[in-house]
Amino acid sequence: MKVVIPYKKARAKSRLSPVLSQEEREEFVEIMLSQVIDSVIEAGIETIDILSPSLYGLENMKKARVLLDKGDLNEALNRYLEQADEPVLIAMADLPLLSPNHITEITSTKEDVCIVPGKGGGTNVLFIRNPSNYRVRYYGSSFLTHCSIAAEARQNVEIYDSFLAATDIDEPEDLVELFIHGKGAAKNYISKKFRLEISRGRVRLSLI
Amino acid sequence: MKVVIPYKKARAKSRLSPVLSQEEREEFVEIMLSQVIDSVIEAGIETIDILSPSLYGLENMKKARVLLDKGDLNEALNRYLEQADEPVLIAMADLPLLSPNHITEITSTKEDVCIVPGKGGGTNVLFIRNPSNYRVRYYGSSFLTHCSIAAEARQNVEIYDSFLAATDIDEPEDLVELFIHGKGAAKNYISKKFRLEISRGRVRLSLI
Repeated sequence: MKVVIPYKKARAKSRLSPVLSQEEREEFVEIMLSQVIDSVIEAGIETIDILSPSLYGLENMKKARVLLDKGDLNEALNRYLEQADEPVLIAMADLPLLSPNHITEITSTKEDVCIVPGKGGGTNVLFIRNPSNYRVRYYGSSFLTHCSIAAEARQNVEIYDSFLAATDIDEPEDLVELFIHGKGAAKNYISKKFRLEISRGRVRLSLI
Repeated sequence: MKVVIPYKKARAKSRLSPVLSQEEREEFVEIMLSQVIDSVIEAGIETIDILSPSLYGLENMKKARVLLDKGDLNEALNRYLEQADEPVLIAMADLPLLSPNHITEITSTKEDVCIVPGKGGGTNVLFIRNPSNYRVRYYGSSFLTHCSIAAEARQNVEIYDSFLAATDIDEPEDLVELFIHGKGAAKNYISKKFRLEISRGRVRLSLI
């Protein structure tokens, strides 16, 4: 089994621009990537590929192999799957709440495919036992799409139900979950800049 | 063990007012309540109390006992806990994705307290083995508060990690999760009014 983590540092996470500058966002995605890689390593998986359209931010990557592919996310991942001859776990790089235990459970699925839904219809982690029988289509309501693709390819699916693994960090409100439920460098980065703002309804962050 | 579900129908769910009228919101919370009760019943729990400041909407409730308490949510629940002489599961009424299996797992905890975090710092479900040793404080970042209250009372805590159970329906974006991951009457109610609007980034709903 191997893990592939798609990654792009340049001008990353534009939807966080109301609360973080471009420089901060680029710093922050690098920290989140590192944390995801550490969780994968701690789960005991040795082959880790980072799939990126550019070397930017990956010049000194020691913990994983870097693969360049200038295609868009789906093209690059599908090329990767075509060439894979072992099970593949696709993990997004913006999942600082994804733990080694989640990864172990996801990759221990008895089904052909294990899909970890993200907030708002997305797919956060995708385990594919038979990559030659599967293609990905991220963006939009990719969770439903990935369920359909599995059904069409007659691959059995497990849906992995985790709030922490479902929390991809794309929008300011997601930082609240990292602040409350996170640990490690990504949480520390946010804790230095924001504090919890308590009101009726959901908690928000405000600048320190 | 018994279950208590706090509930208020009148002018419910004001944060959904951008997408549902007051009449629709009142209809919708009644459907969600009914679905939560059905999940509890299916999990095999027989004593179900609905705790409400008013009989409005509960005049014909057959599936659960109705307790009136005009205090605010915390006052009413803490009065309920004080009088309880068996373990109590507090489940919010706006959890249409909470399944019987979740309830069985939560109530099977080996710890004294099991907390199910909700989006944005909230507490969606709370299992309390020793209600005389515990008090609740909802609103604000109640998840952290409920962890602290347990620690102060030397009660061990399990945190139950479920995306579906974490999804309380308070804001328009939450309806997306119900649309994608839900089933039953609450999902049908939303499916008749909205359709998925696919764009880059997270999926939204728009009116049919």
